[in-house]
Amino acid sequence: MALAWHLESRPEGEPTADNFALKPTELPPTGDGMVRVRNLWLSVDPYMRGRMNDVKSYIPPFQLGEPLEGGAIGAVVESNAPGLAPGDLVLHMAGWRDEAVLAARSLTKLPELGVEPQLFLGILGITGMTAYFGLLDAASAKDGDIVFVSAAAGAVGSAVVQIAKAKGMTVIGSAGGAEKCAYVGELGADRVVDYRAGPILKGLGAAAPDGIDVYFDNVGGDHLDAAFALARNNARFAICGMIGDYNSREPAQFRFIMRVIAARIRMQGFIVFDYQPRIGEFYAAMAPWLKSGAVQSRETVVDGLDAMPDAFLGLFSGANTGKILIRL
Amino acid sequence: MALAWHLESRPEGEPTADNFALKPTELPPTGDGMVRVRNLWLSVDPYMRGRMNDVKSYIPPFQLGEPLEGGAIGAVVESNAPGLAPGDLVLHMAGWRDEAVLAARSLTKLPELGVEPQLFLGILGITGMTAYFGLLDAASAKDGDIVFVSAAAGAVGSAVVQIAKAKGMTVIGSAGGAEKCAYVGELGADRVVDYRAGPILKGLGAAAPDGIDVYFDNVGGDHLDAAFALARNNARFAICGMIGDYNSREPAQFRFIMRVIAARIRMQGFIVFDYQPRIGEFYAAMAPWLKSGAVQSRETVVDGLDAMPDAFLGLFSGANTGKILIRL
Repeated sequence: MALAWHLESRPEGEPTADNFALKPTELPPTGDGMVRVRNLWLSVDPYMRGRMNDVKSYIPPFQLGEPLEGGAIGAVVESNAPGLAPGDLVLHMAGWRDEAVLAARSLTKLPELGVEPQLFLGILGITGMTAYFGLLDAASAKDGDIVFVSAAAGAVGSAVVQIAKAKGMTVIGSAGGAEKCAYVGELGADRVVDYRAGPILKGLGAAAPDGIDVYFDNVGGDHLDAAFALARNNARFAICGMIGDYNSREPAQFRFIMRVIAARIRMQGFIVFDYQPRIGEFYAAMAPWLKSGAVQSRETVVDGLDAMPDAFLGLFSGANTGKILIRL
Repeated sequence: MALAWHLESRPEGEPTADNFALKPTELPPTGDGMVRVRNLWLSVDPYMRGRMNDVKSYIPPFQLGEPLEGGAIGAVVESNAPGLAPGDLVLHMAGWRDEAVLAARSLTKLPELGVEPQLFLGILGITGMTAYFGLLDAASAKDGDIVFVSAAAGAVGSAVVQIAKAKGMTVIGSAGGAEKCAYVGELGADRVVDYRAGPILKGLGAAAPDGIDVYFDNVGGDHLDAAFALARNNARFAICGMIGDYNSREPAQFRFIMRVIAARIRMQGFIVFDYQPRIGEFYAAMAPWLKSGAVQSRETVVDGLDAMPDAFLGLFSGANTGKILIRL
C-alpha cells in the first residue's frame, strides 16, 4: 500500500487543509513496461491551485476523491521495463505520494550531471529552461548587453538574473518591496528597481540611464511600456509572461509602443516546451554553473509527506521563499 | 539662372498657394567635384508639409525665403566630377526647381535597370524598399504565408500587396472606404477589409478564418490588436508605422497583446535606411517584376514646374491617387 494525498473537496477561494486527505492507495502490479518508484522529492507549485478547480485549462483539473498529481523525483525500486533498473533516479508527475507504479514512457531518467537530483524540479527543469532559452534564444542576449528582468525575485526571474551575470551581461531587476529587492541584489543584479516605490518608468530610467538592450518580460503592462520607452537600438524583448494583465479587466495601455519602430525593437513570444529538443544544450550549460555556484537555487525544504498540504498553503501566505520542496 | 520654388511664408494649418513663390535663382559655378543637373521629374510628398513648419524633426525644416527641397530625378548637363558625364541620370534632393549645381557626393547615379527613371522616386525608391525589406526581411514572409497588410491602398501598402502576390502569398489588405478597397482588390489582394464598415477585428476575422502568418503594420492601434488576436503560431509582424497612434492623445490599448506568448509572435520594428547596403538585392528583384507588370506603380503626372504647389496642395484634399510626380 502507498500513501497519497487525495482531493477531499474543492476550495472556495483560498484552499484550506480540509481540502486534502492522506489515504492508503492500492498499487497495481508492476506489469510489462512498468516500474515501481519510491519518491524522494515532491514539488510544491502555485499552478496546482488552478487544478483544484473543476475548470478546463491547459492542464486538466484534479479529480474529486482521487490522488493529486505534481512533479516528483523518485528512485526505481522494481522494474519491468528495458533501460530502467532499481536505483535509477527518475522525474515524473506522480507527486503528492510516497510510492507509485508508472509506465516507463511517462517518466524521464535523470541525466548524470553530478548535481543534486531535486534541482531537476526547478532550476534544471521547466523554470531553468524558461530562463535560459528565453534569455539566450528568444531575446538573443549576449555578453555586454544591458538586460532588464521583471519579477526578478520570482523563480524564472531569479534564474534569468544569474544566467545573465554568468554570461557577462549587466543586469537590472525589478521586484516589489525591500526584501525581494535585497534578494535580487544578492543574486548578482547590478541594479534593482522597487516597482512599489514609484512608477516603473521612472525607476527604470534612473537604473538604466543608457537604456536597455534586452528585456525579459514576466509581467507585461507598465513594465513592458517602460521597456519600450528605454529600449536602445536593436533591443530584443523575450515575452515570457504577462501576469499583470491576466487578471485585469482593462486592456493593457502602451504610451511608448511606437518606439518599436525607431529603436528597431524585436519582441519574441515563446513557450518553453518548444525548446525540449535542445534540453541537452541546456544541461551542458547549467550543470557547470550550478557546480561552480555561479547559478544557485534557493530552496525551502520541508520534511515528510504529512507536511505537504501545509507547505502548499504556505505559498499563498508568502511564508516561504524560493523553490518549495518536500523531502521524503 | 534657374527657377526655384521658395518658402514665402509658413502655413498656419493647411498650406495655401501664398506660401510658395517661384523665383529666379543664381546658380554657382560648376566647381571641382560638382555637376550641373537639369531636372526631369520632381517628387511631391506629404512629408514636405512637416518641413514647412519651423520645428525640429528627423529632417530639418525648410528655411523662410529659401528654395524648397525634395526628391528629384535629373540629367547631368555639365560635369566637373569623375564618373559623371552629361546625359547621366541622377537621383538627388534638389527638387522644386528646374536646374541645380550639386556636389557629386550628394547624388546617386541611377542604375541601368531598363525601367522608367521616375520609378526611382517611388516604387524603386524608399517606398518600394520599405515594402520589400519590411515584408521579406523584418517579417520573414515566405511563399504560402497568409499576409495581412494595413493601409493597403497607400504607397507602401500597395507595394506590399503586389510583392506578396509576386512571391506566392495569400494577401488580405485593409483600407478605408469602397473606392480604396476596390483599388486594393485590383492590386491583387485575395481579400479586402473595409475598416470603415465595422470593427477591424470582426472584418479581419471574417477575411482570415484560419488566421494570419504575417502582419505588415502601417497603422498600429486596433489593426495591430486584431493582428494579435488572429495570429497563427510563429506569426511575424513587421512594424513599419503607427499612423493611427501618432496624433492620438490616448495611449494605445491592446486587448490581445498577451497572445504574443501563446502564438510565439515575433514583432520586428524597422527603419528602411538600415537596408541601404542591400539596395542591389532590391533592384535585382523589383526590376523584373516592374517589367513583367507583376508590380505596378500608380502615378499621377502633372506637367510643368508652375503646377507644383497646386499638386502639393492636392495631397491634402485627396485630389490625386498614387505617387504624385511633376514632369519638366
